[in-house]
Amino acid sequence: MAQPDLTAHIERGLSDLRDLVALESVSAQGRMLPETAAFVTRLLVAEGFTVRSYPGQVAPVLVAEAGEGSATLLIYNHYDVQPEDPLELWQSPPFVLTEREGRLYGRGASDDKGELASRLAAIRAVRERNGGTLPLRVRWLIEGEEEVGSPSLERFVEEHAEELRADGCWWEFGSIDPEGRPVLYLGLKGVMCVELRCRVAASDLHSSLGAVVDNPLYRLARAVASLRDDAGGLTIPGFYDDVRPPSEADLAAVAQLPGDGQPLRDTYGVTRTLATSRAYHERLNLQPVLNVNGWGGGYEGEGSKTVLPAHGFVKLDFRLVPDQDPARVLELLRAHLDAQGLTDVEVVELEAHQKPARADAAHPFVQACMAAAAAAHGAEPIVNPSSGGSGPMYPFQACLGVPCVAAGISNIGGRVHAPNENILREHFARGVAFGVALLERLAANPA
Amino acid sequence: MAQPDLTAHIERGLSDLRDLVALESVSAQGRMLPETAAFVTRLLVAEGFTVRSYPGQVAPVLVAEAGEGSATLLIYNHYDVQPEDPLELWQSPPFVLTEREGRLYGRGASDDKGELASRLAAIRAVRERNGGTLPLRVRWLIEGEEEVGSPSLERFVEEHAEELRADGCWWEFGSIDPEGRPVLYLGLKGVMCVELRCRVAASDLHSSLGAVVDNPLYRLARAVASLRDDAGGLTIPGFYDDVRPPSEADLAAVAQLPGDGQPLRDTYGVTRTLATSRAYHERLNLQPVLNVNGWGGGYEGEGSKTVLPAHGFVKLDFRLVPDQDPARVLELLRAHLDAQGLTDVEVVELEAHQKPARADAAHPFVQACMAAAAAAHGAEPIVNPSSGGSGPMYPFQACLGVPCVAAGISNIGGRVHAPNENILREHFARGVAFGVALLERLAANPA
Repeated sequence: MAQPDLTAHIERGLSDLRDLVALESVSAQGRMLPETAAFVTRLLVAEGFTVRSYPGQVAPVLVAEAGEGSATLLIYNHYDVQPEDPLELWQSPPFVLTEREGRLYGRGASDDKGELASRLAAIRAVRERNGGTLPLRVRWLIEGEEEVGSPSLERFVEEHAEELRADGCWWEFGSIDPEGRPVLYLGLKGVMCVELRCRVAASDLHSSLGAVVDNPLYRLARAVASLRDDAGGLTIPGFYDDVRPPSEADLAAVAQLPGDGQPLRDTYGVTRTLATSRAYHERLNLQPVLNVNGWGGGYEGEGSKTVLPAHGFVKLDFRLVPDQDPARVLELLRAHLDAQGLTDVEVVELEAHQKPARADAAHPFVQACMAAAAAAHGAEPIVNPSSGGSGPMYPFQACLGVPCVAAGISNIGGRVHAPNENILREHFARGVAFGVALLERLAANPA
Repeated sequence: MAQPDLTAHIERGLSDLRDLVALESVSAQGRMLPETAAFVTRLLVAEGFTVRSYPGQVAPVLVAEAGEGSATLLIYNHYDVQPEDPLELWQSPPFVLTEREGRLYGRGASDDKGELASRLAAIRAVRERNGGTLPLRVRWLIEGEEEVGSPSLERFVEEHAEELRADGCWWEFGSIDPEGRPVLYLGLKGVMCVELRCRVAASDLHSSLGAVVDNPLYRLARAVASLRDDAGGLTIPGFYDDVRPPSEADLAAVAQLPGDGQPLRDTYGVTRTLATSRAYHERLNLQPVLNVNGWGGGYEGEGSKTVLPAHGFVKLDFRLVPDQDPARVLELLRAHLDAQGLTDVEVVELEAHQKPARADAAHPFVQACMAAAAAAHGAEPIVNPSSGGSGPMYPFQACLGVPCVAAGISNIGGRVHAPNENILREHFARGVAFGVALLERLAANPA
C-alpha cells in the first residue's frame, strides 16, 4: 500500500500543537485548565465530534465521539502538562513551540500535546480520505489531571463505561527508537508507595545510650534488608503468588527486544546493574520490583554527631505486575514484618496506588496496532509486554475489558517532564501516518 | 573521723565559680579562651601552684603543680564550655551564675567549671588544715579544648608524660545520684565514627528503572543489618576477639549497681530497650555498641516520589571497650562488608577516634577514691567500671600508666550541654568535702 500524502495534515497538526503548547495547562498549579479544555473541545467539534465535558477533581474530563462503523476505537490522552521550572534551563520559552535542527521544543510537545495533535491530524486525514466521514466510531477520553496522578480517572471510567466501550484503547504515549523503529507497550506496572516508620523514644538520646536503647535506623535497615535479595528478587512470603505467568506471546516479545540497556547505563552513569542482556528486558517488562526512594533520620549533616535518633523513616515503592493487588501486597508486607519480629515498624500507605494491567499480545486489536505500526514506520515494531512505569491503565482493562496499546511519538532524548522537552518533526509526521494506518485498518477489519 | 567545717571554703569556691562562669570560654567559637586560661592561672598561682601554659590547637593547655610529699595526684579538668544557644530557653543569663531553689544555674556550672572550682576549694582547705602547705604533690592538667574533642590532648600527654607522672588521675567529671550517693566511673569507652556510602549511578533515575539498576539505600540496609543482631550484639567476625574479659572486681561492681534504667526510660520516653535489670548495667559498662547516628538519601519530603536515588549514606559510631583498637575494628568492618559482597559500600572514618580505657577496681588509688567518697558523702559509692560514654582517657592510662577515676558533682537533672545547666549547691559542698577527704587520704597513705 502506497503511503498517503499527509503533508498538509501534518502542517495543520503542528499548527494545532503550537496553539496547544501556548496554553499553560499546568495541572499541579491549576493553570489554564478550563481554557485548554475549551480549546480542545473546539478542535474536536470542528472535526465532527460531539464532546461532553465532566467535572474532574482538578480539571474537566472530556469524552468526545465521532464516526460510524462496526469498529470502535477508544483513544486516551491528556491536555495537562508538568510545571516548566527550572525556567532558566530552557533554551527557548517553554510555552512557545520552537523548532531547532529538526526538533520541536516546548512543554507538552511530547507529553501529551504532541500525541494529541498528531492523532487529531490523523483523524482529519482519514475523514478527508473517506469523503468527510469517519469509517469507524472513535471515542476519545481526554483528561486534564494526568500529571497529578489522574485522581478522578478510575471512578470516571467505572461510571462512564457505556460511553467508553470499544474494541481496544490507543494509550496516550509510546515512542520511536533511535533506529526509527516504533516502540509499543501493551501494559503498565502497578505502583504502591509506602513509608516504613520506626520510633524508639520520645526524643533523641546521646549515642552512649545505644548500649541499652534500640536504634530505629537499625530496625528499618533490618526491615528493608529483609524485603529483597541481592539479585532484586522480593523475599516477602507470598509476594509472587498472584503474579500471572507470562504468556507465550509475552515471552516471545521479550525475547525479541533489542539491546541490553547499555544506552540507559551510559545516560545515567550506572555502576551497579541488576540485569543485563535477556534479564534486562524480562525484569523491566515482567517482574515486580521494590524500590527504596528515600531514607531519613538522625544526623545528616557534615561529619559526625554521636546521637541515638528517636525515630526514622524509609520510603518505598512497589512496582507490581498482573495479577498482583496492592491491598494484598500491603497485607503480605505487614505479615512479613511481624514474622520478622518487626512489629514496631509501622507501615503507612502514602497515596492512592495503581493496579497493574497488561494486554494479551495475541489480541486482534494488538495485532492491528502492530501491523499499522509496521506499515507506517516501514519497520517491525518493538513490542514491550509492559512498560516498567505505571499509570491508570487498569480501569480501562478491568471495566471496559479492552486491551490498551501505547504507541506514540516520544524519543529517547525527549526530556519529558524536564526542560527542553521535545519531539522530532519527523516523528510527528510518522505519528500522523500511524494514526491513519491504524484507523483505516480497524475500519476495514473490525474485531 | 569528724567532717571538717568547710563553710568558708565552699563560699569562696562558689565565688570562684561565679567568676569562671562569667568568662564566656566557648571553645567551638573561640571565645575568651586566653582570658579564661589567664584567670585560671591567677587562681592557681594564688594557691601556691607553679603554672606552665602551652599552646594547644584552639586554646592554651595549662599544667600546674604544687605541694610536696610521697604521694602524687594528677587532676584533669577543662576550662572551656559548650555554646549557650538556644539562648531563649535559658531562664537566667547563661554566663551569670544564678541560684534558684538550691540549684546554681549557668553555662559550665557543672561541666566543667563547677568541678574545677570545687577541687580548687578543696585544695585551699587542705592547705589551710596543713599549715599552709599541701602534704602531697598535686599535678593539674587543665585544657581548653575538651568541648571540641581534645584535639591536642593525646599528643600532649605523650610529650609531657614526665610532668604528669602520678599515682592516679582524678578525672574531670562524676556525679551524685538522686539518693545522694556518689557515682564513680573507672573507665570510658572508645569511640570511632564512620560513614558508609553507596552510589549506583551518576544521577538519580526514575524508580521504574529499579527493575534493572540496583538501589544504594538497599545496599546500605544490607550492610547495616549485617553488623548487629536484634539483641544489640555485633556480628562482625572477630569484633569481640580483643575485648578484655571483665575482671572479678568489674563484675562485682556491676552486680552492685542499683536500678534497671527506669529513670532513663521515663526521661526519654523509651519504647524499645535492649536491656533491663542486670543486662542494663553490663551493656552500659562492659559491652561495645554499634549506633546508627543518621541516614540520608533520596527523597525525604512529604508524601512519595518515585525516584531511584543515585547514592546514599549512613553514619555510625562504634563504642569500644578495652582492649579493642579502632584501627583494627575498621579493618574488620571492611573485611566483613567485603565478605558480605558489599565491596561497593565505601567506609569513611569521619574524625579522630578515641581508644577505650578502664582501670582495675582493685588498684589502691581506686580504692582510695572509693573510701574518700564513702567518707565525704556518708554513703557507699556506686562504682561503674566504665561510663557508657567516651573521652580522652586512654593516653593517661597508656602513657602515664595510671588509673583514672571520675568522681564529681553533676546531677541527673544537670542539663549538661543544654540550656539551664546546673548543679545543686549541696553537691558543690559535697564535692569540696570529697576533695579534702581524697587528698588527705592519699597524703596519709601513699601508694
